[in-house]
Amino acid sequence: MADPVTARRGLMLILTSPSGAGKSTLTRQLLQVENEIALSVSVTTRPKRADEIDTVHYFFLSPERFIQMRDAGELLEWAEVHGNFYGTPRRAVEEALSAGKDVLFDIDVAGVRQLAAMVREDMATVFLLPPSVAEQVSRLKRRASDDDAAILKRLKTARTEIQAWADFDYILVNDDLDRAFMELRAILHAERLKQRRRPKLEALIAELGRDLDGILALGTLPAAGPSA
Amino acid sequence: MADPVTARRGLMLILTSPSGAGKSTLTRQLLQVENEIALSVSVTTRPKRADEIDTVHYFFLSPERFIQMRDAGELLEWAEVHGNFYGTPRRAVEEALSAGKDVLFDIDVAGVRQLAAMVREDMATVFLLPPSVAEQVSRLKRRASDDDAAILKRLKTARTEIQAWADFDYILVNDDLDRAFMELRAILHAERLKQRRRPKLEALIAELGRDLDGILALGTLPAAGPSA
Repeated sequence: MADPVTARRGLMLILTSPSGAGKSTLTRQLLQVENEIALSVSVTTRPKRADEIDTVHYFFLSPERFIQMRDAGELLEWAEVHGNFYGTPRRAVEEALSAGKDVLFDIDVAGVRQLAAMVREDMATVFLLPPSVAEQVSRLKRRASDDDAAILKRLKTARTEIQAWADFDYILVNDDLDRAFMELRAILHAERLKQRRRPKLEALIAELGRDLDGILALGTLPAAGPSA
Repeated sequence: MADPVTARRGLMLILTSPSGAGKSTLTRQLLQVENEIALSVSVTTRPKRADEIDTVHYFFLSPERFIQMRDAGELLEWAEVHGNFYGTPRRAVEEALSAGKDVLFDIDVAGVRQLAAMVREDMATVFLLPPSVAEQVSRLKRRASDDDAAILKRLKTARTEIQAWADFDYILVNDDLDRAFMELRAILHAERLKQRRRPKLEALIAELGRDLDGILALGTLPAAGPSA
C-alpha cells in the first residue's frame, strides 16, 4: 500500500432500506464479488444463537461492558431494540479504513444519522427502494420467516423510513436485481476514486512537480527514454 | 421520461487534466460508448477553420455578440486566449440537463472554477493525471502537432495546473488506459444515481406511502397478486 497511486483510505458504504427491498441479496452478492470490502461486525448484548459465531456475526458483550464502551465514546452508533443493545465499534472501523479496506454497513435510518454526525466524510450512503409495495409484500412473504403480524410491523416501520430518502447520497430502485447490483458496484468503485480518500497522491503530485521543474529549468525536452 | 424511476436531471461531467495525460482519448472513448452524454459546444470569436462546422465544433460568433452574451450572463464561464474569446453558453447546457441528458466538459482549471461558482450542484469534477512526466512528455511528442517550444509551453502550464488537484471531486491516474476508462464510466454511472439528480422519485415515494397506508389501515396483507 506504499504506492501513492493505489494507496487510499477505505470508505464506509452504508446500505439502508425498508424491509423487503432486497437489501440482503445485494449485500451478499457484493461481498462475494468485491474483495476489499467487509461487512461491519456489530457489538450486541443479546444472547448468542446456536448457529452464530462470536466475532464473526457479532461481538457478544455483557450489558456492563457495552455501557462502558458506549460511555467511553468507543461506539460510532448504537441502539436499544427489544431490551438488547446493538452498536458499531469505532476502533475496528478506523483500523479497516486506515488500511485502505472498505466497510459495508447494513443499518437503519436512525443508525445512519448517528454515524453521519461522527464520520460523514468517510461515508457513502445508499438508500434502496422497492419498485412497489406489491413487490415489497411479495418479497416479505417469500421469506417465510415472518407471520402476517410480523410483516405488518415491518411495513409500519417501512412507512416511516421511506420518508428519509432525501437524506441519502444515492438512491437505488430495485426493479431489476442485476441492474441494482451493477449500480451499487459503480457507486463503490466511484467513491474509491474520491480525491479526499487519496491523500497519498500528494506524493505523486510532488514528483510530477519536481520532474517538470527539472525540464523547465533546462529549457529542453529529455530525449525519448525507455518509456517513450 | 415521465417514469419517476428513470427520470433524472442530467449532470455536467467535467474532465480536466494537464496536457499529455490522455484526456482526448478518454473523452473520445466515453462519447462512443455512452449514449446519454454529449460534449459541450463552446462559443468562440476565433475564425472558423476549413474542417470545422458551425454549431458542431463551436458556435462561431462576432466579438460584439460574444460580449453581449457575456454581459447578459448567458455564459457559464469564459476566457480570452491569444486575443480570442471562448465561452460556455448557459442555455444549451440548461436545456440538456433538464431533458435528463449529461454534458461532458473538456475545460481547464480556471474554467472549472468559474463553473463551480455558478452551477456546483450539477457538476462532477474529475482530474486526470499522467503517471509520470516521462510518460507525459512521450505522449506530447507522439502527437507530432507541436514542436519542442510548444511542448515546453504546455509543460509550463501543466506545472501550475497540477497544483489544483485537491479541488476536484475525483482523481484518475492514467497509468492504464483501460482501467482509467472503466473508472471514468463508474464515476458517470454513480453520479447519475445521486439523490439530488432524481427529484421525480418523490412521486415513487408518495405512491409507496399511499399503498403502505392502505395496507396499514386495513391491518391485513393483500393476497398474492400477479406480481407475487
